[in-house]
Amino acid sequence: MVEIRFSLFYEHQLPRPWADGQELRLYQDALDQVEIADRVGFDYVWEVEHHFLEEYSHSSAPEVFLAAASQRTKRIRLGHGIVQLPPAVNHPARIAERIATLDLVSNGRVDFGTGESSSGAELGGFGVRRTEKRAQWQDAIDAVTRMFVEEPFAGWRSPYLRMPPRNVIPKTVQKPHPPLWVACSRRETIQFAARNGIGALSFSFVEPEDAGKWVDEYYRILESDECVPAGFAVNPNVSVVLPMMLHEDEATAIDRGIDGAHFFAFALAHYYGTTPHDPGRTSVWDEFQERRASKGFDRERIIANAESLNVNVGSLRGAVGTPGQVVDLIRRYESVGVDQISFVLQAGPNEHEHICESLELFGEAVLPHFTEGREEREAAKAERLAPAIEAALARRKPARRSPPGYRIDEDAEVARVQRSSRSRRPVRQEIRAAARRRATRGFYTLVHGRTDEQIERRFGPGAQRLFFTGMARAYDPSAAAGFAGDIEFRLTPGHGPATAWTIRVSGGRARARAGGSPEPDIVLAARTADFLRVLAGDENPATLLMDGRLAIRGNYELAPKISEMFGGPSPY
Amino acid sequence: MVEIRFSLFYEHQLPRPWADGQELRLYQDALDQVEIADRVGFDYVWEVEHHFLEEYSHSSAPEVFLAAASQRTKRIRLGHGIVQLPPAVNHPARIAERIATLDLVSNGRVDFGTGESSSGAELGGFGVRRTEKRAQWQDAIDAVTRMFVEEPFAGWRSPYLRMPPRNVIPKTVQKPHPPLWVACSRRETIQFAARNGIGALSFSFVEPEDAGKWVDEYYRILESDECVPAGFAVNPNVSVVLPMMLHEDEATAIDRGIDGAHFFAFALAHYYGTTPHDPGRTSVWDEFQERRASKGFDRERIIANAESLNVNVGSLRGAVGTPGQVVDLIRRYESVGVDQISFVLQAGPNEHEHICESLELFGEAVLPHFTEGREEREAAKAERLAPAIEAALARRKPARRSPPGYRIDEDAEVARVQRSSRSRRPVRQEIRAAARRRATRGFYTLVHGRTDEQIERRFGPGAQRLFFTGMARAYDPSAAAGFAGDIEFRLTPGHGPATAWTIRVSGGRARARAGGSPEPDIVLAARTADFLRVLAGDENPATLLMDGRLAIRGNYELAPKISEMFGGPSPY
Repeated sequence: MVEIRFSLFYEHQLPRPWADGQELRLYQDALDQVEIADRVGFDYVWEVEHHFLEEYSHSSAPEVFLAAASQRTKRIRLGHGIVQLPPAVNHPARIAERIATLDLVSNGRVDFGTGESSSGAELGGFGVRRTEKRAQWQDAIDAVTRMFVEEPFAGWRSPYLRMPPRNVIPKTVQKPHPPLWVACSRRETIQFAARNGIGALSFSFVEPEDAGKWVDEYYRILESDECVPAGFAVNPNVSVVLPMMLHEDEATAIDRGIDGAHFFAFALAHYYGTTPHDPGRTSVWDEFQERRASKGFDRERIIANAESLNVNVGSLRGAVGTPGQVVDLIRRYESVGVDQISFVLQAGPNEHEHICESLELFGEAVLPHFTEGREEREAAKAERLAPAIEAALARRKPARRSPPGYRIDEDAEVARVQRSSRSRRPVRQEIRAAARRRATRGFYTLVHGRTDEQIERRFGPGAQRLFFTGMARAYDPSAAAGFAGDIEFRLTPGHGPATAWTIRVSGGRARARAGGSPEPDIVLAARTADFLRVLAGDENPATLLMDGRLAIRGNYELAPKISEMFGGPSPY
Repeated sequence: MVEIRFSLFYEHQLPRPWADGQELRLYQDALDQVEIADRVGFDYVWEVEHHFLEEYSHSSAPEVFLAAASQRTKRIRLGHGIVQLPPAVNHPARIAERIATLDLVSNGRVDFGTGESSSGAELGGFGVRRTEKRAQWQDAIDAVTRMFVEEPFAGWRSPYLRMPPRNVIPKTVQKPHPPLWVACSRRETIQFAARNGIGALSFSFVEPEDAGKWVDEYYRILESDECVPAGFAVNPNVSVVLPMMLHEDEATAIDRGIDGAHFFAFALAHYYGTTPHDPGRTSVWDEFQERRASKGFDRERIIANAESLNVNVGSLRGAVGTPGQVVDLIRRYESVGVDQISFVLQAGPNEHEHICESLELFGEAVLPHFTEGREEREAAKAERLAPAIEAALARRKPARRSPPGYRIDEDAEVARVQRSSRSRRPVRQEIRAAARRRATRGFYTLVHGRTDEQIERRFGPGAQRLFFTGMARAYDPSAAAGFAGDIEFRLTPGHGPATAWTIRVSGGRARARAGGSPEPDIVLAARTADFLRVLAGDENPATLLMDGRLAIRGNYELAPKISEMFGGPSPY
C-alpha cells in the first residue's frame, strides 16, 4: 500500500439555458468550495484550461482562478490541469511567467500540468494542426522548463518557436520548478508520461483494476532507461479522476450527483467526438436531455438500480454514494498503487450546497481513513525511487550556460523570429528605422565613458553635420503636435570657436543646416560633447538642464518634445 | 473643479543584486500593500505587463497578481496597466478570457488597460515589428471587444489574426465590458485615446500645467465627431502617474522615496533608450549607481535642495514629501481636470514598511481633502458627456449577429488559420485524417434520429464493407498497446440473416474482411443499426453494453480500447 492524495477537479460547467449572473455565481461558488476543500484537508485543486467549450468548461483562464484561490487557502496545492502548450494558444514565455507568478503569490504551491488539447473547437479555433500538437508539446515543455532554470534563457529555434536570449522573469519559488504533469486519456499517454519522468493526470474514468496495470507500467518505465525527463526534476505520480457526490444516504447521493456525472461524460463525448456544434447556438444540455437515456445516462434507471452499479462504479457512477462506499472504492485504487484521486463535484447541474456538504463529509468520514502514516510512506517511496530519478536526470540535456556578451538587438531579432512565420520584406520605413537605431547604438559605444576632449576630437564639424542631418531625417511629425519653425543648437567645444546648427521644421518635414537661425523659436546651447552624448542616448537633456549644462531660450514648452520629435525613446 | 481618483501603480521593481526569496517577498509585500490601499480608500491598483525587463519590472503576468489581489480586497478596482495587445504576445481570445475571468473572481472590478509595449527587449523577444504594433493594437482591440459582446464572436480575418467563429467564454460581469484605457506617453497618444473614446493612462511624469493642456485637448476630441469608440462603451478619463513617498517630515520622505523615483526613471530610460543590455548579466542597479549623478539623479543634491524642487516636482520628485505638499500638488492636477493620479511607491530600493506607512498616511491626511462631493461631481460629468458619448457610440461599427448554422470544422479552420502564417502543404496523414473526420460527420447526419429500419435499409452489406474497411484504415497502433489478433463483429438486422465482419490486427496494421474469425480474441455482437450508430459517433459502446444491446465474448479488457484503436475520440 502506498500513500494516496485527494484533489478537486474543476471544469466550471454551466449547462444551458444561461441566466444573467450565473457565471459570476459559478466562479464565486467554486472559490468558496476550494476554501472548504483546503480547510477539510484536500491536497490539490486542479483547474482545466479549455477554450470555447460552452457548457462543458467555462474555465479558459485557470491562471486567474487559481491565483484568486491562492489567497483563499493556506495549504492546498494549485494545479493547472492542464496548460495548453501549443505556442499558438500560449506563448511559452507567457506560460513560464504565469506559472512563476502563481508560484510567487501562492508561496510555492503550484503544480504545472501540461497538455495539448484535443477538441476540434480548440485546435480549429487556434489553428493548431492535430498532427503537430504532440511535437509542439515536446518542444514547448523543453523551452518552458529551460526558461525556469536558465539565467538567461539561451533562446530557441524550432519549427514552432523562435526566441532570442532573454532572462524570463520572475522565477518560480519551487526549485528547479513546480512538479510537472501531463494529461493522459489512455494507456499510451501514461507510458508517455513515464518516459518523460512526469506525473500522469488521467482524465478518463478508469476502473481500479485497469488503473493498477497502468500504474505498474508507469513505474516500470519511469525506473528504466527509457525515462528521459522533460523537466529538470522528476515527478513520479499517477492520478485518476472520478465524479463524486457524498451523502450518508446512498439514494440521496445519487439523486444529487448523478446528473452532473452523466452530463460531464455526455458533454465530453459531444466536444471530443464528431457531434456537430454551432458556436453560441447548440445547447448541449438540451441534447443531453433528449439523448441521455439512449447514451446510457438514464437517470431513473441508474437510481432504481443503484446497488448493481457497484460493478461498474468507475465508468458511470464513480464516487457518488455513501462515505463507506467511497472509502471502499478508494481502497481499491490505493491497493493498486494510484497516487492521487481527483474528484469532480462541480459538474452539470450539481448544486453548490450539495458540493459543500460532500466536501465537509469527505473531510469527516473519508479522509481520516487515509492520512495515517502517509508522510512516512511518501518518504519511503521517494527514497526507493531516488537512484532511478538521479539516473534519469543525468540523461536529460542540462541547462545551457550561454556566454556573456549578447546584446538585445530588436531589429535583427524581429527579423529572425519573423522569418520563421512570414515571408514579408521589411518596408522602407523599417529599414530606415533599423539603420537609425544601429547608428545610435554604434554611436553610443563611441561616446560612452569618454572625456569631453576625446569626444570633441573625434567629432568635428563633418561628423556633426552627419548627426544633425540624421536627426532631421528621424523627424516624426506625429510627435511634433503641429510645430513649425526653427530649432537652433549652439555647440561650444572645450577649445576653439562655437558652432551653430539649425533644424527647420515646415510642411511636415525637417531639414538641418549649418549656422544659426534668423528667427529661432528655441535655442539650445551646450558643450559640444554634451550635445553628442544626448544624441547618442548617453545623456538625458533634462539632466543637462538641471545641471546648468544646457541653456534654453525661447519657447520652453517645446523643449521636452524635441527628443521624441527626432526619434528619441518613448516608453509606450 | 472635477472629481479626482487615486491609484497605485506597480511595476514590481527589483534592483540587483538578487538574493534567494526576494521575488517572493516582493510579491507578498505588494499584496499586503494593495490590501492596505483598499482599506484606506485608494480607488484603483494598476499592474503592468512587462516581459524580460529585469530589475525594472518583474510583473510579467499581471492577470495572476490582480486575481490574487481580488481576494485580499473588497472595493479597489483592478487595472491592467496595460495588457500587451500584439497577438504574438497574447492571443486576443486569451486576452478576452483572462479579462472576463478576472472580472468574475473580482465581482466586476476590472479596468482593462491596453497598449503595445515599446521596448526592444519585448518587441524583439516576441518578434513584433515596431512599425506594425499600432496597427496590431487597433486590430486586436476591435477583436477583443467583439469577443466580449458577440455571442458567438463571428470570427476574424486580418493580417494579424485569423480565427473562426467561436463563443468566447466566460463573459465579463461588467456590461458591455470593463472600462478601456490605453497607455500614453505623449500628447499624440493622448489624442489617440480621445479619438478611440477610451481612458488615457499617461505613464510619463508630466507637470500639472502640461497635463491641463492634454486634458483640454482630450475632452475636446472625445466630445467631437473625431471620436469613434474602440470598444462598445466610452471611458472618458485621463490619468497621470507620479512617484510617491509620504512622511510628516519632508527630509524623511525624500530620504525614503527619492532613490526609488530616480531608479524608476533611470531604468525606464535604460530599457526604452538604446543602452546596451545583456540579458541575465547587465546590472541596471550598478549602472544607476555609477551614472545617476551624471543623469541628474544625484541623491545628495536632491536632498540638499529639497525646497527648490517644487518647481520641477512632476519630473523628478513627484509626490515625495509631506501630506501638505502632496495635497497642494494634487490640487494643481485637479484644477486642470486630471481625473486620476496613479502613484508609484514600490520602485527601486524603496522599503515595504515605508510604503505601508505612506499608504496609511495618505488615507489619513491626504485623501479626506478630495472625497467630499466626489460622486456628485462624477455624476454631473457623466450627465454632461452623455449626449456626446451616445453620438460617439453610434459611430462605432456594431456587434455582428452571425446567422445560425455554422459548424465547427477543425480541418478547414486550421487550414484557413495556417494559410495566413505558413505555407506548408498538409502531409498525407493529415489529408487522411481530415477525410475520415468528414466521412464520420457526414455519416452522423445520416443515422442521427433514424429508426433501426431506416438505418438498416440504407446500409446494406456494400456500405458495411465501406465502414469496416474505413475502421481498419483508421487503425492507430499507438492506442493498441501491442495487441495483435482478430476482432469479430456480429451484426443482426431486424430482418434477415446475421452478418459477420472481422478486423485482423497484425504487424502494426489492421485489415477488415467479411465473415467471422476462426480464432477471435474478442467477439462483439449487436444489432446492425446499433453498430452503425457507434461507428457514426451517435451512440456510445458503453451504453449499448449497459443496456444489454451489445454482447461481448472473449478478451473483455480489449473492449474499452477498441474505440481509440480505430480513431475514436479521446479527450486529450
